[in-house]
This record gives sequence, C-alpha cells and structure tokens, in this order.
Amino acid sequence: MSDCPPFTDATSRRDFLRKGAAAVAFPAVVSLTACADTKAATPADTASRTPAVPPTPVLSARQKADAMDEMHEKGVKAFPAKTEGKGNQPLQPRLEGGVKVYELTAEEIQWEVEPGRTVKAWAYNGQVPGPQIRVREGDRVRVKLINKLSQSTAIHFHGLELPNDQDGVPFITQPPVKPGESYTYEFTVPNAGSHMYHSHHNAVIQVGSGLLGAFIVAPKRPLPAHRADVDYVMVLNDGFHGYTLNGKGFPATEPVVCTQGQTVRIRFMNEGMMIHPMHLHGMHMTVIAKDGWDQPAPWKCDTLNIAPGERWDVLVKATNPGTWAFHCHILPHAESEHGMLGMVTALVVQKPGVA
Amino acid sequence: MSDCPPFTDATSRRDFLRKGAAAVAFPAVVSLTACADTKAATPADTASRTPAVPPTPVLSARQKADAMDEMHEKGVKAFPAKTEGKGNQPLQPRLEGGVKVYELTAEEIQWEVEPGRTVKAWAYNGQVPGPQIRVREGDRVRVKLINKLSQSTAIHFHGLELPNDQDGVPFITQPPVKPGESYTYEFTVPNAGSHMYHSHHNAVIQVGSGLLGAFIVAPKRPLPAHRADVDYVMVLNDGFHGYTLNGKGFPATEPVVCTQGQTVRIRFMNEGMMIHPMHLHGMHMTVIAKDGWDQPAPWKCDTLNIAPGERWDVLVKATNPGTWAFHCHILPHAESEHGMLGMVTALVVQKPGVA
Amino acid sequence: MSDCPPFTDATSRRDFLRKGAAAVAFPAVVSLTACADTKAATPADTASRTPAVPPTPVLSARQKADAMDEMHEKGVKAFPAKTEGKGNQPLQPRLEGGVKVYELTAEEIQWEVEPGRTVKAWAYNGQVPGPQIRVREGDRVRVKLINKLSQSTAIHFHGLELPNDQDGVPFITQPPVKPGESYTYEFTVPNAGSHMYHSHHNAVIQVGSGLLGAFIVAPKRPLPAHRADVDYVMVLNDGFHGYTLNGKGFPATEPVVCTQGQTVRIRFMNEGMMIHPMHLHGMHMTVIAKDGWDQPAPWKCDTLNIAPGERWDVLVKATNPGTWAFHCHILPHAESEHGMLGMVTALVVQKPGVA
Repeated sequence: MSDCPPFTDATSRRDFLRKGAAAVAFPAVVSLTACADTKAATPADTASRTPAVPPTPVLSARQKADAMDEMHEKGVKAFPAKTEGKGNQPLQPRLEGGVKVYELTAEEIQWEVEPGRTVKAWAYNGQVPGPQIRVREGDRVRVKLINKLSQSTAIHFHGLELPNDQDGVPFITQPPVKPGESYTYEFTVPNAGSHMYHSHHNAVIQVGSGLLGAFIVAPKRPLPAHRADVDYVMVLNDGFHGYTLNGKGFPATEPVVCTQGQTVRIRFMNEGMMIHPMHLHGMHMTVIAKDGWDQPAPWKCDTLNIAPGERWDVLVKATNPGTWAFHCHILPHAESEHGMLGMVTALVVQKPGVA
Repeated sequence: MSDCPPFTDATSRRDFLRKGAAAVAFPAVVSLTACADTKAATPADTASRTPAVPPTPVLSARQKADAMDEMHEKGVKAFPAKTEGKGNQPLQPRLEGGVKVYELTAEEIQWEVEPGRTVKAWAYNGQVPGPQIRVREGDRVRVKLINKLSQSTAIHFHGLELPNDQDGVPFITQPPVKPGESYTYEFTVPNAGSHMYHSHHNAVIQVGSGLLGAFIVAPKRPLPAHRADVDYVMVLNDGFHGYTLNGKGFPATEPVVCTQGQTVRIRFMNEGMMIHPMHLHGMHMTVIAKDGWDQPAPWKCDTLNIAPGERWDVLVKATNPGTWAFHCHILPHAESEHGMLGMVTALVVQKPGVA
Repeated sequence: MSDCPPFTDATSRRDFLRKGAAAVAFPAVVSLTACADTKAATPADTASRTPAVPPTPVLSARQKADAMDEMHEKGVKAFPAKTEGKGNQPLQPRLEGGVKVYELTAEEIQWEVEPGRTVKAWAYNGQVPGPQIRVREGDRVRVKLINKLSQSTAIHFHGLELPNDQDGVPFITQPPVKPGESYTYEFTVPNAGSHMYHSHHNAVIQVGSGLLGAFIVAPKRPLPAHRADVDYVMVLNDGFHGYTLNGKGFPATEPVVCTQGQTVRIRFMNEGMMIHPMHLHGMHMTVIAKDGWDQPAPWKCDTLNIAPGERWDVLVKATNPGTWAFHCHILPHAESEHGMLGMVTALVVQKPGVA
C-alpha cells in the first residue's frame, strides 16, 4: 500500500495510462488498478508485516479496517481476472446458397464464473452467454438448434418480428425440441437492433442456467449519428450463476477499452429477473435506442435502469481519460464487505498516441 | 403430440387462423395452441401409452422431459380457461340530472384466480379488478361507495386531479368510511387518460386483496393518431392472489384479439408492489402516454417496464398474423417447471376476411 | 372523530387552508390533517370512551375497525412529527482564495428516524442525508473528508464528470482513507445538475448506514422554463434505517410547502437498493431532467419510478390547493395495518394572500 503512488498525482496517472496503452491490443491485460504495475506491497507482503489474521483473537479497529481494505484491494488488483471460458464470442456463419447458417448446441457444461467458482451451466456452444450472432437487416438466416440437454427446449428470438411459426414458444408456435433432437429455424431478418435469443421453455431454469445470447441486427441504412468506434454488448444476468456481466462476475468481468476521443456503443441486455441500474463513472451515456428501436430524441444519463427483457443502446463519447468504475447501482449486486463483486467492470479510456 | 401438425408448415398455420377466425366473436373460444382443434394426442392419451407416472419409481431422462412437456402443453391447451367470475367489466352509469352515477359496493367474495384455485378477495361489485369506469373529460360523475367490509375504507381516484376533498385519503381529505356505511364522491372529471381507483386505507391489505379498478377518461379532443380499433385495459397485480392480469392467472387470462391490420390500444396499469416488464412477441408497441399524459413523441419497444402506480398506453399495429405470447419478462412471474402461469396472455392477430 | 368537520364541505376546507396559511412560515407547523386544529377527539380521548384494548378479549368487527382507524389517524395527526436531528441542510462553504471549501466529517451517530425510533447511523457532519452542497458550474471546490469511522472510506461524487483522480473509488482512483485520516478532493465543477456524493467503499454498509448527500450544481445559464419558486431535494433511501425521505420516516418526514400558483422543483435522488415509484396526488409532475441532464422534451406523469443511483428533476405547477399525499407507490413502503409509514410526505399548496 505504502508503495502505491499518490493517486492525486497527475503524473502517475499519466504514467499508468501510458503503460496501460501498451496493453490495449489485448484488453485482458489492462489492469484496473492504477498501481498494479508498481512495486506495491501485495496483500501477502503486507500480511507478513501486519498479519491480517494475527495469532491473538483480538483485532484493533485499525487492523480490521486494514484487513477489509486488503480484501478490497485484492479484488481490484485481480481485475480483469483470468477464468476458464469466455461467452458472447462472435459466431461466424456458414454460407449455404446465400443463407447464413448457425448451429447452436445446447448442453450442460462447467462454467467458471469467477476465479475458483465453477458452476453447472446450460450453454449454447459451451459459452455463457451463448455466441454472439451479428447479421444485417434482410439477411436470410438459418439457426439449427441441437438439444443435448436432458430437457426439451426451444429458441425464442426476442425482439425479432418473425413469422409466427419461427417464434419459438413450445405448444404455441412449435413442438418442444426433445432431448437428443434438433430443430431448424429459418427466416429473413425483419428488423434491426439489439436483440436476444434464449430458451422459451422452462425458462426460469433454462435461461437462469445460461441458455441465452445476443442477436444483433445491423440496419440497412445506419444513422451517421450512431457511428461508433467500439461496439460492446453487455448482457446482464442474475440467475443461478449470481450477478454477472457477460457470464462473469467481478473480478473476471471484461473491461470496455477505448481511446480518448472515440465513441463507444454499449448494448445493454437484461436476461435476469431483476432490474439493474447501470452507472458509469466519469462520463455520461447518450441513450439512442430501446429494444432495437431508435428513440425519437437521444437523451443523457449516467445511470440507466435496465429491466428484464429490455435492451438499451447508448453511446459514450470517451472524453475523460482514466479507468472508470462501471457497475450496477443496486449496491449488493456490486460489492460486499469483502470487496467488489458481480456486476462491476470498468471503462478504460486510454490517451491517444500512447503506445 | 405426433398428431399435431408441423408448425413450420405455413398451410397449417393458415388453417389454424382460418378456423380460429370463426371463434373471434367470442374471444374465450380462441385457442392459444395451434393444434388444439386437431385430433392431437391429449396428455391423457399420451399417458396411456407413455405413463407420466409409471409404476416403477425410476423415470428415464426422456420420460422426465415428456412429463414436464405434458404439463406445459396442458396449460397452453387450457388457455383461455374458464373460471368463475370476470373482473374489469364495463359499468354503465345511471344518469341523474346530467350526472353519471356509479355505485361501488366493497365486500368480501370468493374469487377463482385459475381453474380450481379460489381465494378470498375484497372486491368492488363482486369483481377483481372492480368494474371498469369509462367517462369523458368534463363529465359530472358521482361515485357512491358502499362499505360491506369488516374494515373502514375509502376510494382514491389515482391520476385524477380532483378537488382536495374528493381525493380519498382518510384523515387527510375525508374520514374513513366505516363498515356498514357509505360515502359519496362527486366531481367534474378534470383530466383525460388511463387512471385507476383503489382503496387508500390499509392499502397493502385492501388493494392487495382486490379493491382496485380502471378509471378511463376519454379526451374531449382525441388525437387522430391515437385512434384504435381495439381498446384493451390490462391491470397487472401481484398481491395476495398471485401474479395476475385483470384478476386472473394463466391459463385463465384473457387473450387480446384483433384482426390483421387493426390497431390495438393497450392500457397497462400496475396495481401491484413489483415492476412488471411486459413483453410482446412478434410486434412492437408504440408508447403514446404515461399516466394519462401524452408523451411528447411516441417511441417504440417490445418490452415495457411498468412500475407500481404507473399507467402506460401503447398502440400495437397488428401486422403479424398468429397467436403471440404476451407476458411479464420476470420469468418466475410467467412460468415454472410445471408450465406457464400468472402474467401470461396472448395477442391473437386473425387474418382479415376469414370467417 | 365526531368533532371533525365534514371534509366534503368546501367551507371547512377553506377554513383549514386559511388557518394553515398562518403556519406556512415554519413548515414544520403545517398539519397534514384537515381537522387537526378543531376540538376533535384525540385518540386518547376516544380511548377513554371506546377502549382500543378492552378488558374482554373479544373485539367486535366495528371495534377492530375503529382501533385500526385510530392508529392511522394518530400517524396523520402527528405529521410532521418532531424528531432529533435534521439532514440535508445547506452547507455554507468557507472561501479560500476563490475556492469553496467544504469539510465533511464521517462519524457514527445516533439518528432518530421516527419519534422514538433511534438507530445507529454513519453520517457526514452528524446529518442523514449529509449536508446539502450547492455550487455553480465552473466553481472551484475543495472537499475535505475527515474519517472518524472505524472503517476506511472515500467519497465518490456521483454524476460529476471529474478528473479520474478525484473520482473517489479506493484502489482504482485513490487509496482508501483510513480511520483517523483525512483526504482532500479538489476540482472545478464540470457539469450542472442534481448529483450526489456518497461513500464508494464497503458501500452496502456505508451508504446503507447514511454516508450520502446531495450535490447540486446550478447551471451557468439556467433555462427560463426551469425557473421555480421552491427547490426541494428529496433523497430516497431503504437501507438500515428503513424506508426514508431525507433520512426520516413518516410521520417525521417534511412536507413540501408552497403557495397556489407557484412552481415547485423536486429533485428526486435514490440512494437505496430498490426502486421507488413516487406518486403525487392532485397534480402532475413535469419531468425536465435525468441525472442532471435536461430531457430533450419535458413529459408529464403522476408516478415517477426512481431506480437506485438515478436522479430525476420534475416541476410541479401548484394549481390545486390543499394537502396532498405524496408517497412511494410500492404500498408496503408507505403503509401498514398500523397506518402510514416510511416514504410518505405531503405537498401542501396554500391559497395565496391567506395569512
């Protein structure tokens, strides 16, 4: 701690940003903590001098405060922590006669939510969220669902205005897809925007276990005002895996990284059962679309309440350099006495020309 | 199941819609399931061949999946299920010297929420929600409340900008209306929109038990852009009767029925204690009013978050034929492992000229 | 009760308002109940004639109703109840070379939430919410945090777009401020609007215990359309102190008082962990800003859903004279069988020229 540079020192901050910039090519190397790359005392070092759990059962108030701070620091320094598996990865289609063909295999996997916490998940193609599908308005798309689960399932394309028989609701628009069976959806993509796909069968369990993903449709005629340098999908969830962003809890969440002056588009999607008011530090968000439909006029905020099933698209003009906390403002979704957790990530705004 | 027509077959879907159209005169006959009128295997039929509860205690994974699917199918096929009692029915006023006179009797009743689940309710005129009152801006209205409950009560006209002494809050604007007593409100309707009336005394219990209803005020000069062919009030609740739409839980909820090309106005009203993000499949909703006040510009969504006390008016252009799931997207409010429940209904878009 | 004038009698109402007007100079004297200044039977008086807890164990239904009503009446008559301590009080800065200097001392105190209910709180300058800071866009501001708590802490200026090193997040932008230590923030205020300051360390506990306050920034060029006669900050919370408005639960909440014809600006801020849809009786609210940013077009409502971390600014044109209930519409946040509680206050619109 004592080796950590003073954070009010602008030079140190610039140093960090300059060093951090070298890491931008692979965001997972970007560190949240401004002093992570210094010779700072690690929790272990500190413990050797000021034991967090001393031999005597009585801790002074200061020792208790230090012990708590060490847990908080440990979490921040671990960010972004490496875990097994990464969800929400772009899925390239196979082209068959002008049709974009995707295969989604639903099956049970083990999923590491945070370092050392591995849970049972039901996943598409081994990912939570399932692979990210990106198509264009008017594309012909075929999605083959292969069910390797022990339950029947089906896929609903949430937000797409499909013909009724492609809507994916068992017993209303199709039979359930039984274990071991497969089912093929095929349609021309009718409307642009940030949409989702997920199970619509026994969905409390199936979506809560991970059967969900982003389905992004680029418009035929994009608005110039919506042009962005970085396009980031953030799927919120609060199911059986705890509070997660793109399937991971802090410190295993992924930072959003950009360069000062760039515009970042964030596509929030709530696949959970609770609201999550996402708060960005340091800059505001300009809300441009709701459920894939452009808002009649953009509006600004720093805390955006996202309800289950909703998608909100925002633009952030990255004017303010630094590493900025970005989290759900329902505090127990983001922190405990042991440090930050769950729905916390960072927006990292790197200074331009630093490398 | 095996007799159910293939749902990806457009002909079958057209058949369904053609057959379904004959039922549109009485919406309760509209069936949610595309194969309900075929010689499909019923759960009972299926059970005779593949017992859901076999004599041996061990079920294979496939048998378990089938058993679950049968419960889901049973719920869907039962929709819209017949139950005793119907809430939210239009109440015709008695005219007395130009005044529209309504009588609301609050008393305890038995209320069938879903087939076979009957609960104690406190109701206006034996209905949950209470009868729907529709007046016009500027009308003179008299509402006589007759209290046959064991508790005092009072009516607050939620959203109407009445003179203070008509506001219905015991000890602030009036004395409570004691058991066995009656109380008369009288006012000139000041503002248009989708409003509500409900108890404002011991309201957690009284509103949670059913003392609530819709109070719709037509504007003097309706906007042409808001013209609708179907005008539907949907009261959301999550009180002592469980998750309900207009006082009933799925499969006893009522479908919204229209013809392709029509415009449907839906007036959402939340009388519960939780948010309910209502998600419509297949088409978007255009939001035109909040709490009875026109939005400065309409905006589109497919999932609309409705908080307690809020009213949101939307228009749906029924472009997409079929039977569409329409439900709260907090999944446990809409489904369990036993099938769909609570806050689920359907928007049924019939093809025109089919009869 | 029997002495209470009939509330549907306009003369009595006018009398009340005329008498109430004399009290407007000191809002705490304004009474919520329309018959508080009559020789009405008090609950104690009534009890001597109709004991709420009679010697026989059996109460008739009417006696039970009366006993419940008496509890409700008692709460209303007590409003606004006097308690020890008042939060959210304007803090005058010390001027040092053109810099506005504020000192905030975090320490543990006892806080009376409602009459007779005193809880442990962590407070800035002995207040919950902490003192209200009001500055102007472009001001140079210095905030010295003195930590007299047993835990480390830090201040995040929620909504201000500060340089990264002033953002107040331990281990990301600064070290934690240890018990007994102090820390100084200094910045030029970058953006106008209704913002907040609060702890960003162990925040579930620290914010939930009271370490929060309003930080209001007046714009350099205020919009004429946003001019208001009364400017009221309403901080919502649901932490360890229960459901509170500006740190107090009903009947110890503070009424918002104005004169008919005036415009009232209310700045809602949610420092809790739950949504709170605030419902105003008798008049609508015009929403003008979100998180300090002007909405592109104002819009109207009577129930405004405020999520954790959000700020919403509204204008109320006080057209309708009287005392109006103003409360969270999640009913258990506002009432129980024992009467109103928690997140309830009143908007009192006095007739002009009455004194």
